[in-house]
Amino acid sequence: MLLAYLQSTITPTAQETVDQALAAAAAAQANVDKALEAATAAQTSADFAQFTVNNLWILIAAALVFIMHLGFSALEAGFVRKKNVVNILFKNAMIICIGLLTYCLCGFNLMYPGFAEDSSGFFAFAGFGLSPGPDDMTAAYADYTYWSDFIFQAMFAATGATIVSGAVAERIKLIPFLIFSTIFVALSYPITGSWKWGGGWLDAMGFYDFAGSTLVHSVGGWAALAGIILLGPRLGKYTAKGIRPIQGHSMPLAAIGVFLLWFGWFGFNGGSVLSADPELVSLVFTTTSLAAAAGGIGAFVCSYIMTKSHDLSMVLNGFLGGLVGITAGADIMSITDSIIIGFIAGIIIPLSVTAFDKAKLDDPVGATSVHLVCGIWGTLAVALFGDCDDCGSFTAQLTGIVAIGAFTFIVSFILFYILKVTMGIRVSAEEEERGLDMAEHELRAYN
Amino acid sequence: MLLAYLQSTITPTAQETVDQALAAAAAAQANVDKALEAATAAQTSADFAQFTVNNLWILIAAALVFIMHLGFSALEAGFVRKKNVVNILFKNAMIICIGLLTYCLCGFNLMYPGFAEDSSGFFAFAGFGLSPGPDDMTAAYADYTYWSDFIFQAMFAATGATIVSGAVAERIKLIPFLIFSTIFVALSYPITGSWKWGGGWLDAMGFYDFAGSTLVHSVGGWAALAGIILLGPRLGKYTAKGIRPIQGHSMPLAAIGVFLLWFGWFGFNGGSVLSADPELVSLVFTTTSLAAAAGGIGAFVCSYIMTKSHDLSMVLNGFLGGLVGITAGADIMSITDSIIIGFIAGIIIPLSVTAFDKAKLDDPVGATSVHLVCGIWGTLAVALFGDCDDCGSFTAQLTGIVAIGAFTFIVSFILFYILKVTMGIRVSAEEEERGLDMAEHELRAYN
Amino acid sequence: MLLAYLQSTITPTAQETVDQALAAAAAAQANVDKALEAATAAQTSADFAQFTVNNLWILIAAALVFIMHLGFSALEAGFVRKKNVVNILFKNAMIICIGLLTYCLCGFNLMYPGFAEDSSGFFAFAGFGLSPGPDDMTAAYADYTYWSDFIFQAMFAATGATIVSGAVAERIKLIPFLIFSTIFVALSYPITGSWKWGGGWLDAMGFYDFAGSTLVHSVGGWAALAGIILLGPRLGKYTAKGIRPIQGHSMPLAAIGVFLLWFGWFGFNGGSVLSADPELVSLVFTTTSLAAAAGGIGAFVCSYIMTKSHDLSMVLNGFLGGLVGITAGADIMSITDSIIIGFIAGIIIPLSVTAFDKAKLDDPVGATSVHLVCGIWGTLAVALFGDCDDCGSFTAQLTGIVAIGAFTFIVSFILFYILKVTMGIRVSAEEEERGLDMAEHELRAYN
Repeated sequence: MLLAYLQSTITPTAQETVDQALAAAAAAQANVDKALEAATAAQTSADFAQFTVNNLWILIAAALVFIMHLGFSALEAGFVRKKNVVNILFKNAMIICIGLLTYCLCGFNLMYPGFAEDSSGFFAFAGFGLSPGPDDMTAAYADYTYWSDFIFQAMFAATGATIVSGAVAERIKLIPFLIFSTIFVALSYPITGSWKWGGGWLDAMGFYDFAGSTLVHSVGGWAALAGIILLGPRLGKYTAKGIRPIQGHSMPLAAIGVFLLWFGWFGFNGGSVLSADPELVSLVFTTTSLAAAAGGIGAFVCSYIMTKSHDLSMVLNGFLGGLVGITAGADIMSITDSIIIGFIAGIIIPLSVTAFDKAKLDDPVGATSVHLVCGIWGTLAVALFGDCDDCGSFTAQLTGIVAIGAFTFIVSFILFYILKVTMGIRVSAEEEERGLDMAEHELRAYN
Repeated sequence: MLLAYLQSTITPTAQETVDQALAAAAAAQANVDKALEAATAAQTSADFAQFTVNNLWILIAAALVFIMHLGFSALEAGFVRKKNVVNILFKNAMIICIGLLTYCLCGFNLMYPGFAEDSSGFFAFAGFGLSPGPDDMTAAYADYTYWSDFIFQAMFAATGATIVSGAVAERIKLIPFLIFSTIFVALSYPITGSWKWGGGWLDAMGFYDFAGSTLVHSVGGWAALAGIILLGPRLGKYTAKGIRPIQGHSMPLAAIGVFLLWFGWFGFNGGSVLSADPELVSLVFTTTSLAAAAGGIGAFVCSYIMTKSHDLSMVLNGFLGGLVGITAGADIMSITDSIIIGFIAGIIIPLSVTAFDKAKLDDPVGATSVHLVCGIWGTLAVALFGDCDDCGSFTAQLTGIVAIGAFTFIVSFILFYILKVTMGIRVSAEEEERGLDMAEHELRAYN
Repeated sequence: MLLAYLQSTITPTAQETVDQALAAAAAAQANVDKALEAATAAQTSADFAQFTVNNLWILIAAALVFIMHLGFSALEAGFVRKKNVVNILFKNAMIICIGLLTYCLCGFNLMYPGFAEDSSGFFAFAGFGLSPGPDDMTAAYADYTYWSDFIFQAMFAATGATIVSGAVAERIKLIPFLIFSTIFVALSYPITGSWKWGGGWLDAMGFYDFAGSTLVHSVGGWAALAGIILLGPRLGKYTAKGIRPIQGHSMPLAAIGVFLLWFGWFGFNGGSVLSADPELVSLVFTTTSLAAAAGGIGAFVCSYIMTKSHDLSMVLNGFLGGLVGITAGADIMSITDSIIIGFIAGIIIPLSVTAFDKAKLDDPVGATSVHLVCGIWGTLAVALFGDCDDCGSFTAQLTGIVAIGAFTFIVSFILFYILKVTMGIRVSAEEEERGLDMAEHELRAYN
């Protein structure tokens, strides 16, 4: 009875509340699981939103790099004579086709062959065609899909050959040029690209080239130089009486081209962040724009000092020089540094154009000055101005410039040379006089 | 006393810890509610971020489709003679006005009238003007706002009439053309559009047209064909001695137009995903670009075989043919398929241009070959190459092509015919000779 | 023994389950902490995704505003005579350089000097250069980084001077113009800008100017007017026999310019939302496009009534008038309001162009009609049509127009006047006849 009494007075209360407490704890636990699940779902959604915006930026950047092909076309068309306009447009139209299709066939897998990590890879090939994997979004691409990676890089690839087309304009044969471009874009550009962006030996040694002052621009410039040397100058350019300036046929067209190139460069440099990272992309937009502006001023000042004229073509090329100059380090430069780098690139333009002319290397659009010389300058500037842990040392930068330059120049020279001795690379004097539009296309640019 | 002792030695401890347990469980429960609330808030934020990026892409895509109107203007201006340039620019400028305003007035609500689900809707109208609802972001638009939906679709609407303007260029009277365009964009385009994109009978039967090979491009092409037939060829085009080629006045202008059209197509096709879905949008960018590139090569090869010349206008139209061809299935094609589809579209261009000329159907810019013929090809290609559950069968695709083609052609023919017998649609021979710029605008394109 | 028995039968059970309950509650609590942490992490991720998309839109908008500089260049080049094309391109190229670099040097910190809140700030300066703070993403910029803010605003800054260049074209000396532009962009534009966007006295009194009908467009227009007055008309424009129309040299170039300006306006107005807010940005895209379209129709109708001709240059300027008109209230207007505002702006264009010509104020491109007159109209329209709490009253709007107009006109007049009496602002009659391209640049636009 005492027991029963005790049980009734003492325990039941405790037991009841204990059960309550247990139930409450279990309920809390169950709700905790729901909360955790909800938090995990929210995290997944947030991650996907972040992935979506990063990926979208790479795609928009690819479209902007695409419009650079119109920029190059318009610039080069504006800077050549009226009789060679259809020809230069035809070349640029074919190059974008060739670039995209060969990059799909082999370029992408040559440039990103998947070198073993920390290897000193020089050459590898991941096979023909594209292999997106089961869900098109493999783990290797944390911020964008396989397709975004491909199309962004493919738009880059063709720009190299576009640089060449301007330099060899007004005298090169169409078909040999297209053959050269195909091999150059399909093989040479991706191999040197793999040394750095593909994780190869230059990457391992600390070479730094953010968006391609060397990998894209000076690569195009070296190939252009090889072509210029083997082609020789346009008829009547270098005469006994001195250098005869051959002016382009349309400055508005050239200006449209240069502004579109600057516009596209927001994608070229901004997209090279490889995500929509707010701080980096906005810094890159700022350094890129300021370098271009300073390049225009630099070229204006330098060309005015040299010739006492206000030379629009120098200012336009000064923009491009500034843009090429900042490209290697657009993500690591301060405001002041980017202005200095761009300004010096702008000064380089008239000096370099004059120097090439003195050496009788005839470049109708100034592509070698813009892309080769300013590309080298920008790559060295990373070592001179860059202030970050992984900025390339002077040695690393110089090694990259020399190695990529030597490879590209030699390959291009051999290619052009083989074409020269087999099918010939230069139109006849009569065709050159008549103009390539009628000679190669039987079509006038203007009627 | 025993009781008191028992209570003091046994129960108190239990009771105290029970209270602690209850309190702890209650505290946990309270925090769980906070955690759930926090997780829900995070989910809402993540969903809004996703909504924001999806919506932003639709808007950027709308801006890209807008720039296609500049693309069409430049292309058509480049492909006509110098004396008809102001006229073609004037038409294209007015069409964008007419397109946006009539789509606002009635087009949008004709094209998206809200057919009952799984109905076989043929015609419905949701009323004049726009009705965004209380918060401009109604549930029907999960990934973008009402305004984004409107402006993206409105930019599409005007492109149909732009296609017509090129085909009937150099001989059509301005005012009748503008009247035709207004009725065509306000009524005909939205009605056929509603059959598929508005959820009408073609959608119910499984017709597939991702971004409008049929709904936009061949619709424009059929209207163009009706105009061409009723107008007759330009003076001096088809002579007793054969077909006289009438070359455009500026190839650079045409090239600018085509490159801008390709640029805009990233929005035309990419935006048709109707979200920023990473995998789909990036696939669409890739298939679209590769088809355009393959179209350029196809047109180059085919036109070279046909005429042994390197025809820039064919390559440019080859780009457009590839783009139109991939448009119906850009979201479902493999890399290889999109290259094949584009390449065949490119081959079609010179063949079709020649065929139209043989039939004495005079199209100054090749719009019918690009938009009508390649639009049909692209729509059929969905059935031939598409590999997905909801890809249209050959029958469904053919039904869509024929039904939309017949409706559009008949409506356009009747419209043009009424205009012809009432106010006349063709300028006088003297005006045509003098050029429409002076005849209709008293303004020269170039001074 | 009883105690032991009781303890063994009653308590242990309770104690045991109490311990279980305590442990369960503690476990729940621990998991709650994890869930809260996970929810907080998800919230942080979602917020960063939102920040990333907002920031990305500001950057893309900056790129779109950049392309307006190409739009202005092409429009102005198209509307001047062949002999002054290089000159106008040169000016526009230099203005973008000057605008970006001076905005970096002092403009940004003059325009956003950090007035004390609710002050009636008239002038303040936050110091030379840029000061992004330790992490480039200071709290003041909730939706974008410091760099995004700078580059977006910097692209705006240069547009003011670009407006001037068209109005004073074909007769102003190059160097004085560049000096004027530098001081105007570096000092005058940012000071009046600070009154509203910098949070100064006009902002405090309720003046409303969403994207700059007054702050950017009429500011440029007032400076242009000062220049026009001090320069005088072009030779042969106003003769004893009446007004001689001097037509532009290339309508395609002008059309390219106008379409690119519209394209860029998506960034100009859309970016002025200062985030990617789905509802606001999509509304702004819609009101902006509809106003431009209605402006084209308004100018077409009005110019047809006035001259019975279909005047392309009026329609093109009508687009721009509609765009300038909607700019002050693009975020608060209904569809109908934006169409009315644009249509009236379009009507204004031919009336204003005629009125300026009657007053012998010679503006080769119609910049004062487009930017000054339609800028005033758009700013007043906010008071007439706007339906929101913070829309400016008529008094506030008028105060803003008058205050900013008076300041800008007086400063510009004094600047131009000083330049006129010191170095002269007008080329010689002989140089004007010969053309500025040869006189100032020794370079022809076309060869």
